[in-house]
Amino acid sequence: MVVVMKPGTTDEQIRNLVVWLKEQGVEPDISKGTNITIIGLVGDVSKIDTELLEALDTVESVKRVSEPFKAANRKFHPENTVIELKDGTKIGNGNFVVIAGPCSVENEEQIIFIAEQVKKSGAKILRGGAFKPRTSPYSFQGMGKEGILLLLEAKKATGLPIITELMDISTLDLFEDVDIIQIGARNMQNYELLKELGHCRKPILLKRGFANTIEEWLMSAEYILSSGNRNVILCERGIRTYESYTRNTFDLSSIPLIHKLSHLPVIADPSHATGHADLVAPVALGATAAGTDGLMIEVHNEPSKAKCDGAQSITPDAFDVLMTKVKRIREAIL
Amino acid sequence: MVVVMKPGTTDEQIRNLVVWLKEQGVEPDISKGTNITIIGLVGDVSKIDTELLEALDTVESVKRVSEPFKAANRKFHPENTVIELKDGTKIGNGNFVVIAGPCSVENEEQIIFIAEQVKKSGAKILRGGAFKPRTSPYSFQGMGKEGILLLLEAKKATGLPIITELMDISTLDLFEDVDIIQIGARNMQNYELLKELGHCRKPILLKRGFANTIEEWLMSAEYILSSGNRNVILCERGIRTYESYTRNTFDLSSIPLIHKLSHLPVIADPSHATGHADLVAPVALGATAAGTDGLMIEVHNEPSKAKCDGAQSITPDAFDVLMTKVKRIREAIL
Amino acid sequence: MVVVMKPGTTDEQIRNLVVWLKEQGVEPDISKGTNITIIGLVGDVSKIDTELLEALDTVESVKRVSEPFKAANRKFHPENTVIELKDGTKIGNGNFVVIAGPCSVENEEQIIFIAEQVKKSGAKILRGGAFKPRTSPYSFQGMGKEGILLLLEAKKATGLPIITELMDISTLDLFEDVDIIQIGARNMQNYELLKELGHCRKPILLKRGFANTIEEWLMSAEYILSSGNRNVILCERGIRTYESYTRNTFDLSSIPLIHKLSHLPVIADPSHATGHADLVAPVALGATAAGTDGLMIEVHNEPSKAKCDGAQSITPDAFDVLMTKVKRIREAIL
Amino acid sequence: MVVVMKPGTTDEQIRNLVVWLKEQGVEPDISKGTNITIIGLVGDVSKIDTELLEALDTVESVKRVSEPFKAANRKFHPENTVIELKDGTKIGNGNFVVIAGPCSVENEEQIIFIAEQVKKSGAKILRGGAFKPRTSPYSFQGMGKEGILLLLEAKKATGLPIITELMDISTLDLFEDVDIIQIGARNMQNYELLKELGHCRKPILLKRGFANTIEEWLMSAEYILSSGNRNVILCERGIRTYESYTRNTFDLSSIPLIHKLSHLPVIADPSHATGHADLVAPVALGATAAGTDGLMIEVHNEPSKAKCDGAQSITPDAFDVLMTKVKRIREAIL
Repeated sequence: MVVVMKPGTTDEQIRNLVVWLKEQGVEPDISKGTNITIIGLVGDVSKIDTELLEALDTVESVKRVSEPFKAANRKFHPENTVIELKDGTKIGNGNFVVIAGPCSVENEEQIIFIAEQVKKSGAKILRGGAFKPRTSPYSFQGMGKEGILLLLEAKKATGLPIITELMDISTLDLFEDVDIIQIGARNMQNYELLKELGHCRKPILLKRGFANTIEEWLMSAEYILSSGNRNVILCERGIRTYESYTRNTFDLSSIPLIHKLSHLPVIADPSHATGHADLVAPVALGATAAGTDGLMIEVHNEPSKAKCDGAQSITPDAFDVLMTKVKRIREAIL
Repeated sequence: MVVVMKPGTTDEQIRNLVVWLKEQGVEPDISKGTNITIIGLVGDVSKIDTELLEALDTVESVKRVSEPFKAANRKFHPENTVIELKDGTKIGNGNFVVIAGPCSVENEEQIIFIAEQVKKSGAKILRGGAFKPRTSPYSFQGMGKEGILLLLEAKKATGLPIITELMDISTLDLFEDVDIIQIGARNMQNYELLKELGHCRKPILLKRGFANTIEEWLMSAEYILSSGNRNVILCERGIRTYESYTRNTFDLSSIPLIHKLSHLPVIADPSHATGHADLVAPVALGATAAGTDGLMIEVHNEPSKAKCDGAQSITPDAFDVLMTKVKRIREAIL
Repeated sequence: MVVVMKPGTTDEQIRNLVVWLKEQGVEPDISKGTNITIIGLVGDVSKIDTELLEALDTVESVKRVSEPFKAANRKFHPENTVIELKDGTKIGNGNFVVIAGPCSVENEEQIIFIAEQVKKSGAKILRGGAFKPRTSPYSFQGMGKEGILLLLEAKKATGLPIITELMDISTLDLFEDVDIIQIGARNMQNYELLKELGHCRKPILLKRGFANTIEEWLMSAEYILSSGNRNVILCERGIRTYESYTRNTFDLSSIPLIHKLSHLPVIADPSHATGHADLVAPVALGATAAGTDGLMIEVHNEPSKAKCDGAQSITPDAFDVLMTKVKRIREAIL
Repeated sequence: MVVVMKPGTTDEQIRNLVVWLKEQGVEPDISKGTNITIIGLVGDVSKIDTELLEALDTVESVKRVSEPFKAANRKFHPENTVIELKDGTKIGNGNFVVIAGPCSVENEEQIIFIAEQVKKSGAKILRGGAFKPRTSPYSFQGMGKEGILLLLEAKKATGLPIITELMDISTLDLFEDVDIIQIGARNMQNYELLKELGHCRKPILLKRGFANTIEEWLMSAEYILSSGNRNVILCERGIRTYESYTRNTFDLSSIPLIHKLSHLPVIADPSHATGHADLVAPVALGATAAGTDGLMIEVHNEPSKAKCDGAQSITPDAFDVLMTKVKRIREAIL
């Protein structure tokens, strides 16, 4: 962190600041030029409150030099994190996985049928919404507990590990046999929830908030990691822009950026990113070519009858075609 | 809602759709032109899933004609809602209130001193953060329960009703003597929390999410209202844009728009919107002139020592000057 | 400017950089701490290419300490700029002006009628579009030269100075008797045009680009100012966000921010900012309370028959009511 | 286009509107339901001013059903457009081209060296900036005319067709031997310039404005196409969002969307999109996998000494490695 002092700051004022900074546990490094005095802060600056420093009368500006995240930072953890599920499925560090399934679990027949289909095409993990965050209180909110039970049936029938979204910590008990807990975009900064998840050891798939920066996303991962749970998978699902043809704007650069900044695996969700079935395949292929560690794809046997997000679901057949291309892209970038 | 059919849709396909629509409880109104067939939907369309309709093979596009919110909609509730606190303080329908206080409660002396100061200048409600949502897990997270107890001390000392933020439903019990529960921007779409708050009768101040549309904001209010709690106050606190001089971009139009679309009171938070003490007054005055029902202002006796958001806090003296101008603006727009 | 060197940079590498920096005309100020070496750059850093510096192998990061604009910077020109038109009308430094008129000039009767109406209510300058930038090539593109001639007729009839938009330098000759040249949002970064306008002495009203930062806006003003023309008026007209109820999001903070950063006058255009007639008055009043140096309002005798932007025009009667309130707000903030 | 009438509109009011609409050259199709009257507009609705309609007292809302662009619309021109340069190089409809070269032309040795290098690796077209739009008037503005002459030297030396940016119509004469004229993001809505370019037959590469929707982008192409020049290539170069790690956010979905909506070729510029050399390759590969018709890549022999945008340039060696991977991706998606 670099603190630029205001012109005319006295030596005493600088000494006072230095004393205060040392109390915060950092080592100030004064650089007094002829015209400009700069204090470089070395050590653990993560506890320094930038805004507080900036509010001081003697401070012109404060510039962060290093990233505010530590546990998620590749600098301090150069090795790629690998998440291993109970059945041995691995994610990250070259282990590429495809998660597929319907937006919402609707009934036993549907979820088992789709699970079998996507497994056949190469999906490694089954997704399905049981608790659904919906903008409108009048929309279908998911089957809840029953949805999770049906997912477990599909897991039993196909052997596929399952992932489903947790919206509230009070329902955590229901997720005991769920293999990966998904935290949705709207809850990316629900810090109380993140802290609680830091206390378990279950893999967490943390979706990027629809209007959050990559840094904020990693800081939210930091909430889970710093509470003790190292099993975090990131998921880019598009961000909100003024473009209206697509539901969100898929931020392709986030894939290589996460790999550069962090050791955590990052997967891509082209279904929520685009909101349109016919854009899912090109965005999935693009994300794969850019190095994503996996994909999460909405698949529905009858998209036009899906209880939610039908417009962005692809059929099992389209999924099968996509998987073939994904494999070819994976080989092309080796 | 207007459903535009694809060219070449057969009469039978239209009949099938009409049957399905009727099952959803709406009354389809077919308009068959020479080239274009349009189905107007009358009745309660809030339960119709737009995305599902758009995914149908025969549907070209779906356009909503009316707003998706009902309980918050001025059309169905033309009278302005007035929120009345236990001490008789009213908000809305011409009852203008100023909420003021520190970003965080820090100690008894601080909170009582600031409470006395802002009361003297005309503030009607005391604010102070006890549970603080922070981007970094390493930043000060607020005093928690103790902070609420100190707020209650300040309430006892000054008679001012208090408002503070709830981050998790598990701490609701602590808010029994809190007069208004604040839901922060990051929790605006924490639907499980909103539903729970719909079951109590306490006034809720619902901040706009930093990247949410006005419609999504009103839909979140709808979660509370439709669960039974009619005491919702909206609070505009700026939205995220690419502009970097300010912390957020204060959306001035949202004030008159909320008054047009809804009967709920809406107040303005210029402190979080701008993030800079010297911008608080002009934005507060602008919001007042545009018709806000109140203001929420961060006031701190020593902004440069505030434990969070010091950069955006103004001193009690500056607050006093601002209050005089606010009163003059209020008279000017009568 | 602060250049943070990478850990491990050798003394020789630092000496080389210092030599290069001195060649660029700046005075490097080396601050070698125990762990971090920082080079502070003093002098005219506006010619230093930040991106080039950041690309160097030895450079960790580059942080700008001062603003990149000079001629527009209040630090170097503390006195408010006052723009004086030929008829003596002044803008800035307490001289508040209202510009009003139709979006497009349509015919002589229309423009003279509206000019008379807005003059009666207190407008000081007449606006009217002759060359209209339209998203679609099939939309009405304005009357062009004839429109300017009609504006000049209205000027003769009422004595009001006139402002109209210039879209291409090739038509500059037609603007000889136009009092203020307007540069629209889409041309804010048309640098060749800005440079040309720097060579004349006519007042220029520079609208903020719909997705430009305040810094970019001031840098565009800098193009005009640094070419020799000091008569620049800025105009906030809203920026593009994801909010869809309004045409743009009026950035209220930009008014006090421009006053803080620059000596140039800044006015507000609530018509383009909101796109809705019923939002014009509250946003105009808000901008006035926040300290704008003037307003630009679209007024049309028959908004529903206006050839463009009818939806955001207010009637002469509504304008008259608004002017009364604007005057009261002006008095309230004195 | 669908016009929804306000409840309570009389038959006479509807008749009047129908008469007016017919005068505009469209065929109104009245659909009178029991509760809602809808007028469907068939024919060439591109000349109907949506805003004007919405401003009418009797109109509740206006919804566009079809896209406002015609000449660029795939519906009316299902065949992919192929742009053919003088030397026979083709772009579009499966003809994939890579454009490469330095951000700015700096001197003869540099441009010829880079041209030879990129040609060897498989680039088909040489890029190089002569007129450079820069945010600051104090930054290097390009070599201008001399830069174009140097590009022509490089063309002679290598046989590569060249592309360079035109900023102002007054310099058009200098572009006679330039093979493709580039219109930069800042000029995407410089309509006078677009109209002029519609009068020549030279291929135009139209970059997407940094805050423009896909629809606005196609409408800008429409300005060129409707003026007579059918040789338009689109170029996605990222859009502005709040994300600050990258210079822009590359909108991957725009590639398949343009292919769906339009017959025009679309290429990707990962250099400007990301602003960081290490992100260029993954984004280039991602765009290729998503189906782009080509790439535009900044290549510089010494990125750290480039006169502009050095941070986003890759070396000839890195370019060569990238080209090999691009070819593999192209094969993988066949």
